[in-house]
Parts: sequence; C-alpha cells; structure tokens
Amino acid sequence: MTRVASPRRLADLARDLGRECEGDGDFAIGGVAPLASAGAEDLSFARSAQFAAALRESKAGAVILPEGLDAGGRPAIRSPNPSLDFARAVTRLVPGAPPAAGIAAGALVAEDAQVHPTASIAAGAVVGAGAHVGPGSCLHPRVVLYPGVQVGADCMLHAGVVLREGTRLGDRVILQPGVVLGGDGFGYAMDEAGRLEKVPQVGCVVVEDEVEIGANTTVDRATLGETRIRRGAKIDNLVQIAHNCEIGEDAVVVAQSGLSGSTILERGAVLMAQSGSAGHLTVGERAFVGARAGLHKDVPAGQRVWGTPQQPEHAWHRAMAALARLPDALRRLRAVERKLGLRPQRPKPSEPS
Amino acid sequence: MTRVASPRRLADLARDLGRECEGDGDFAIGGVAPLASAGAEDLSFARSAQFAAALRESKAGAVILPEGLDAGGRPAIRSPNPSLDFARAVTRLVPGAPPAAGIAAGALVAEDAQVHPTASIAAGAVVGAGAHVGPGSCLHPRVVLYPGVQVGADCMLHAGVVLREGTRLGDRVILQPGVVLGGDGFGYAMDEAGRLEKVPQVGCVVVEDEVEIGANTTVDRATLGETRIRRGAKIDNLVQIAHNCEIGEDAVVVAQSGLSGSTILERGAVLMAQSGSAGHLTVGERAFVGARAGLHKDVPAGQRVWGTPQQPEHAWHRAMAALARLPDALRRLRAVERKLGLRPQRPKPSEPS
Amino acid sequence: MTRVASPRRLADLARDLGRECEGDGDFAIGGVAPLASAGAEDLSFARSAQFAAALRESKAGAVILPEGLDAGGRPAIRSPNPSLDFARAVTRLVPGAPPAAGIAAGALVAEDAQVHPTASIAAGAVVGAGAHVGPGSCLHPRVVLYPGVQVGADCMLHAGVVLREGTRLGDRVILQPGVVLGGDGFGYAMDEAGRLEKVPQVGCVVVEDEVEIGANTTVDRATLGETRIRRGAKIDNLVQIAHNCEIGEDAVVVAQSGLSGSTILERGAVLMAQSGSAGHLTVGERAFVGARAGLHKDVPAGQRVWGTPQQPEHAWHRAMAALARLPDALRRLRAVERKLGLRPQRPKPSEPS
Repeated sequence: MTRVASPRRLADLARDLGRECEGDGDFAIGGVAPLASAGAEDLSFARSAQFAAALRESKAGAVILPEGLDAGGRPAIRSPNPSLDFARAVTRLVPGAPPAAGIAAGALVAEDAQVHPTASIAAGAVVGAGAHVGPGSCLHPRVVLYPGVQVGADCMLHAGVVLREGTRLGDRVILQPGVVLGGDGFGYAMDEAGRLEKVPQVGCVVVEDEVEIGANTTVDRATLGETRIRRGAKIDNLVQIAHNCEIGEDAVVVAQSGLSGSTILERGAVLMAQSGSAGHLTVGERAFVGARAGLHKDVPAGQRVWGTPQQPEHAWHRAMAALARLPDALRRLRAVERKLGLRPQRPKPSEPS
Repeated sequence: MTRVASPRRLADLARDLGRECEGDGDFAIGGVAPLASAGAEDLSFARSAQFAAALRESKAGAVILPEGLDAGGRPAIRSPNPSLDFARAVTRLVPGAPPAAGIAAGALVAEDAQVHPTASIAAGAVVGAGAHVGPGSCLHPRVVLYPGVQVGADCMLHAGVVLREGTRLGDRVILQPGVVLGGDGFGYAMDEAGRLEKVPQVGCVVVEDEVEIGANTTVDRATLGETRIRRGAKIDNLVQIAHNCEIGEDAVVVAQSGLSGSTILERGAVLMAQSGSAGHLTVGERAFVGARAGLHKDVPAGQRVWGTPQQPEHAWHRAMAALARLPDALRRLRAVERKLGLRPQRPKPSEPS
Repeated sequence: MTRVASPRRLADLARDLGRECEGDGDFAIGGVAPLASAGAEDLSFARSAQFAAALRESKAGAVILPEGLDAGGRPAIRSPNPSLDFARAVTRLVPGAPPAAGIAAGALVAEDAQVHPTASIAAGAVVGAGAHVGPGSCLHPRVVLYPGVQVGADCMLHAGVVLREGTRLGDRVILQPGVVLGGDGFGYAMDEAGRLEKVPQVGCVVVEDEVEIGANTTVDRATLGETRIRRGAKIDNLVQIAHNCEIGEDAVVVAQSGLSGSTILERGAVLMAQSGSAGHLTVGERAFVGARAGLHKDVPAGQRVWGTPQQPEHAWHRAMAALARLPDALRRLRAVERKLGLRPQRPKPSEPS
C-alpha cells in the first residue's frame, strides 16, 4: 500500500538485515503492505504460524516470515523476528525526508541561542535566549523552545511542540506534534481566607535518550526538582504526566492515561490506554496495568492488575464475570430466603419480586 | 443573548427557511437566545411540547415551534423540526466573519505550494513544499501543513492545527484549534536486546468531506495504508484515534474517547464521552456505546452497550442496580448460612459480623 | 534541589512572611527542596507532625515548620501553615523571569489591536484585529488571539494558547501551553435526510480573575450565551469543558476530567482526575467527585461521591469491597441452594461447579 520511492532488490535488503534470501533475489520491492492488502509488487510479512492462512490468501509478491512457514513459492526472507525485520525493512525502503540543515528564513532564533550547524530549524520555529540545539536535531515549524531549553543530538520535534524553561532533552528523542513539556504542575495551598494560592512550580522536566512522546501529551515540571522520563520510555498521545513523576526506562504509557503527582513507573512497566494512577504510588518493574484501570495503591513488580479500584488480573476477571451474574444471584437469594421463611431486613420497594 | 448584527424581519427569515410566518411578520429579530434567557427582541425556539411551560414563562419576542404548541401571542415560525430550523436561523442571522482571501503578510508559504486565490492563509500559518489548499479554504494563524498535504475546498482550519505529511482533507472539513492529524502511530517491535524499536509509521490520514474534528484531538497516521475518517463523521475534543482506524460515515465520537489501533466504527455508530475501545474491533452500524464504556469485543450493528467491560444496555443497568444492593445481599447471605448451620468456607476477618 | 539566584537571609524571609525566625537569622538560603532531597544550604518545610521522622533524617539547613515540632537545632521559621508559607517563600526566592514589556520583533499584531505598553507580546505571537491586551499581561510565542479577544491585566498566556473570537479573560489569569478557549461546541441537529447538520456555536467563553487552566485543556464556546469559568477556579491539563458549562468560584477540576454541555460546578466543588459528567447536571457547592467517577445525576452540595455510576462515598467503598468478595459469595449461594435442594433456575454451563 505504501510505495517505495526507488524499488530495491530483495537480496540486497536481506543482506542489510543480516538474513538469507530465499528464491528470486532480484525481486524488485515496489511497496510495503500488510498481507491483506499487499499486491504483486509488495513486500509483506507473517509474524508467526498463526498467519499461515492469511499468507496463503495474500497477493504479496515477497514476504518476510519465520522458519517453517510455507512462503507459497514467493521470494522470501527468513527471520527469527519477522515483525522487527519488517519494521527495519520499511525504515530502509521508505526513508523519511528530514528537512535541510540550517536555520530557515522565518525561524525566530535568539541571538545567544546555540544551534548546531547540522540542526534544522524550520520557518516559524522559536528558539529562546540561551537555548541549545544539538547536532542533527530537527525543529519543525512552530516548535517553541523557552529560554535556556536544551535539546540533544538527533532529536525530532514536530510542529507545535512547546518546551518550557528548564526542559532538557537527551539524544534521539521524538516528540510528536503538540507535546507540551514543562507546564506548571497543579499545586495550590489554601490561604488564610480559604482560597487556593498557587504553589510556584520551579522544578523542570528531563527527558532521556530514545524517549518518544505522542501528540498533545503533557508532562508537567516538578514543583521542586525534576519530573523525569528515563531512557527508552514510550508515551502515547494525550497522556498526562503530573509534577515530580518518574517514568522508568523502557516503560510504556498508552494513550489518554494519566499519572498523578510523584508517581513512579519502574523500568519496563506498562500502563495500557485510559488508565490512571493516584499520586505517590509506585508501579513496579515490568508490572502491567490493564486498559482503563485506576490505581489507588502500589503495583508490585511483575504483577498484572485491572479495574478501578485495581485488582490482580485473575481476581478482576472473576469479579467481572460474577458481576454479570449478580442480578440472577439476587433473585436466587430471595428464593432461598422465601424457602427459609426469612425476609430481607430492608426490602427494597423497587426490587423486582 | 447573542446579538444580530443587523436586525432582520421574521417573515423574511421564515421564507428563507421555507416555513410559514404566523403573526407579525415585521417583527425585527435583534438577537437569538434560549427560552430561559431570551428578551423581547430575541428569537428563541421550543423543541417540543415538553417545553410548553418554559415557553409560557419566556420573555422571547418571537419563537420557532412545532405545530400544536401555543405561541402565547408571539409572532412565530411553525416547523416540523424546530431545532434544525433554529440552527439554520442562527446561521443566517449571525454569520461568521471569514478572513479575507489571499495570503496574509507573515504567512510562510513554500514557493511550490499551490494555494487557490480564493483561499485565505493567515499571518503565522505555514504551508509546506508541494502542499495544496483548495478554493475557499481558510487557514487560521499558526496552522502548519507539512510538505505535500492536501486540503480541499471550503475547509476551515483553526489556529494551531498541524497536518503532518501525507494528510489529505476533502471538502468542507472543519478542524478546531490544536487538532493534530498524522502523528506517528504508537508501534514498536521488541529488538534482540529486549528493547522497543520504533516501527516506522509510513501510512497517512485521510479525512473525507464534511467531517468536523474538535480541539486538541489527535488522529494518528497508519502504520501502512490509511487511517480514514469518512464523510460527515463528527469527532469532539481531546479524542484519540489510533493508527489504521476507520471512522464510518456520519459516525459520532464524543469528547475524550479513544480508539486503539485498527478499530472500525461503522456508519452512524456513536461513541459517547470518555469511552474507549481495544484494538482490531468493529463497532457496527448505528451501534451506541454509552459514556465511559470500555470495549473489549465487537459491538453488533444497532446494539447499545455500556460499562467496562461492555454489556448490553439493559444488562448493564440491571448489574449496576444489583451492585448497589450487593453489600446488603452479602449480609442476607450470611443470615441464611447461619440459619442453615453453614459457615463460609473462607470467612473474611474484616467482614462485618 | 532548586537553586536560589542570590542567597537570602532567613530572617529577612521570615519578616516578609510575617513570621518569627528561630535560631540563626543569618542563615543564607541557597536553594529550596523537599525534606528528602534537601542539602545543608537548602530551605525545606514540614507540613505537620506526620513529617517529624522525615525532618529528623533530612539534611535541610533550615526549615519552615509548625509549632511543637522539633527543628533539630536548625534555624527555622514557625508557621501555622507551613505549606502556604513555603510556597510564598519559593515565590520570593525563585522569581520567574517575565519577558520584557513591549511587542517583540516577529510578533504579528493587528494595527487596530490595543496592547498596553506594559504588556509583553513575544515573537511569533498573533494578536487579531480589535483585540485588547491589558497592562502587565504576557503573551508567549505563538499565542493566537482571534479578532476582538479581550485579555485583562497581569495575565500569563503560555506558548501555543489559542483564544478564539469572543473570548474574554479577567485579570491575573494563567493559561498553560496549548490551552484552547472558544472552540466550537459539539452540537448538531438531524436534517431531513438523517444527516448531522452543524448547530452554529455563536456564544463565547468568559474567564474571570485568578483562574488557572492547564496545558492542552479545551473550553468550548457556548452555543448561545456564555461558557463561564468563575473567579479563582483551577483547571488542570487535558480537561474538556463543553459548551455552556459554568465552573464556580474556587472550583477545582483535576486532569483529564470532562464536563458535558451545560453542566454547572458550584463554588468550591472538586472533580478529581479522569472524572466525567453527563450534561445539564449540577455539582453542588463544595461537593467532591472522586477520581474516575462518572456522574449521571446531580451531586448535592457538600456530598462526596465515587464510581460510575456515582454513589455516595461510603456506599461506593462498601460496594467495591463487596464486589471483590462476590465470586466467593456466588459459590456460597450455590452451597446453600444445594443444601436446600434448590437448583438455579437458569444454571450457567460455564459456572464453576
């Protein structure tokens, strides 16, 4: 479905991936597509034996697939990890077109900002006083760096990103459009008259290497100290990370989830979509929080939890199944009570008889 | 409450709406307002007989109302659909003030971009190389079109909208401020070292005619192929549409809802606010998903579901009513057990006696 | 953890706060930090006696603390409200650096806009025709004011804020990056062909004094009339406020919550994170809505509710505790039925025996 700018030989791709090519190495890859929509010029992939039927029916011209699966006579690349190799193939076949290095006309860069000559600052981007942009980094139109912000090497900041003062990015950070880092945390103290007085938010946000953050996600600065997103963490769209949180290395936070203040996700923890956490909690290493779960206490390392309030995965599934049977159970309980001559002590007038 | 720039005769409005005027056709409409706050110069409306009392008490000078309702001596327009006719009346009485056609000073338009002479590009908007803006379309300040983006005719793109590369809009599309189309989908493959490696997102976003998308909503590009929003779909604020989703014609997605990857909403399906869906599901034609529901499986066409995990509407209401009675039911169950000389096999020490 | 630009004597700070200094008034405050991370040059604070142990172990050089708590020999400031006084101390010790007054080069200000000479309009900000910016207000880069927008005195509008036409801000309003005020409400009427036709949204948004609104939050204009955020209300990130809502004085709406149309929060009401409300409801004065609650009916003044659908706090806690015990209760109910020779009328084949 997605065309390749200049077709490439399958054998050359296999060599780049460090894999063996099977069949016609001269197959010219004209595009990349999933099995269902691939055509005769396309490279596709089958993740596992579960996709054997889809592979049989696919019109894909070539395929990346695991050992033991029938390629159906197509030229193929065998891989122990077809998903990963297909991703790498697409990276090679459909490369992005990064803007040219340099500061475009229409960019607003403060005189004392330091922009590496290999960085790219697009028209309409704003780089504040004393800010620093490292080699190879790209600021798309309308990115705003407040004074003193630091951006490392090979970062990609998409249009509309705002980094408030004190924000520091490592290397190879990707920020999708509209990301806001360093907005004030939500903190107030009650004054003598019972009104809320703003607690100054003078900390910052630090984002380490290889982090990616999704569109319109917000990460608040710390009240004091740092809100920190550690190396390799991946955060999806419209996520809220409150002041003083720590997101662990390789942790994953899926769309529309939210963390209250000072919550810690340890390394490799996963929060599925639309989940949330009360503040000052710890989600342990490689713990898994199911979609739409609401955390009110810590999650031990490795544990899987679901629900609001959270329960261990198995308990939650049992509780939900039981809940669906509850109306019937209440009816049965009444039958038991009648049989025993017992009456509910507080009969509900609205209860069906 | 909202003033009309130049007052208009009620009879003239009625004629425009294709309706009959009743009473004084010379009534000069000075403003539009709901019944509760309307004054003697205002036009208001009553949707149905349910609003008879509100209409009696209203100070509105004129009214659009259904047959059979007493206008209270006011000049009136009878309508089979007062809501629709009032909406159309407001459109005529309080027209928007679209910016002037042409490219404003301070707009940053690439040399090879194609902007129709009747389109309006505001100061601070950025139009990338090879982008195309059709006749009558309006880009407010700080809209960013990445290279190659296509915008059809009579579209309204509000301030801060970002359309990443490959995005295509049909005609009469309305994007509220801060909408992001074409951010990367959230896709990673595990590499040999157990780290997450980005799966390139090389698909695009296609938005068909008459779609409206709310403020700060995000729609991700497809991994491969398209994420597609079909004709007439309406999407509210802060919604997340993941990669490869399809939103059907005239479908409705209310605020803060989220769809995981490859989910399909069929024609006319409705997702109420703060609902969510797991990936690769289908919500059938004209299905209705209640507010805050969490979908974990398909919803058949026309079905109404609520809850997390979802249940048919009636079952969910019964389950929620039963849940409220559950603490009492547990107490009654213990009374039954005592009467029978049965003991709970695993008594809970914390259980109230 | 956060350094003070120029160290300050503790006694001078105490005097500014209207408190007494205890011990060495010449202590030079070099930074501010929480107890856990404070060093010998830092000022910290202990909220109450609950922090006695943390205070003992802290390396903080000076502390603000309540009467009766042992300062451990440190110089100290006694306070009846240590949180508030520490917040005020930080405000004095770590002042923000507001941009210089005046209109920066690269700002796009309409000729007939009225900008007070003491206001600050940054590079890349856009001020539309007839807009008004009051004394001391600050527009960061890429703020967009549509024509006719009014901003009062001493407001702080962070980068990327969009105020659509008709929006009016009072004084001392703070808008974090990416806030959108005045986007169209989500309103449609069904036309003769069964399609959704846009209901024009011709009302506005009014924000009163001392309101703060968090990053990427959206507040929709009224259909007719006003959406109003009253004095002192505090709204967190990624919140959705629909058309015609009223947020009461000093009300609090925590992150990712959403209010449907025409909902009223009365004075001092609190909505915790990720909660939501159906439309046309009233949340009474000082009512408290727990995190992730979903409101389907009014909340009386002062009441505390949780859950979806909402229940009074105590009832909800009981219901959730009961739900966790439900699977066991169903097993016990079956044991009772067996003992009585009763069979469930509709036994579930999937039910564990």
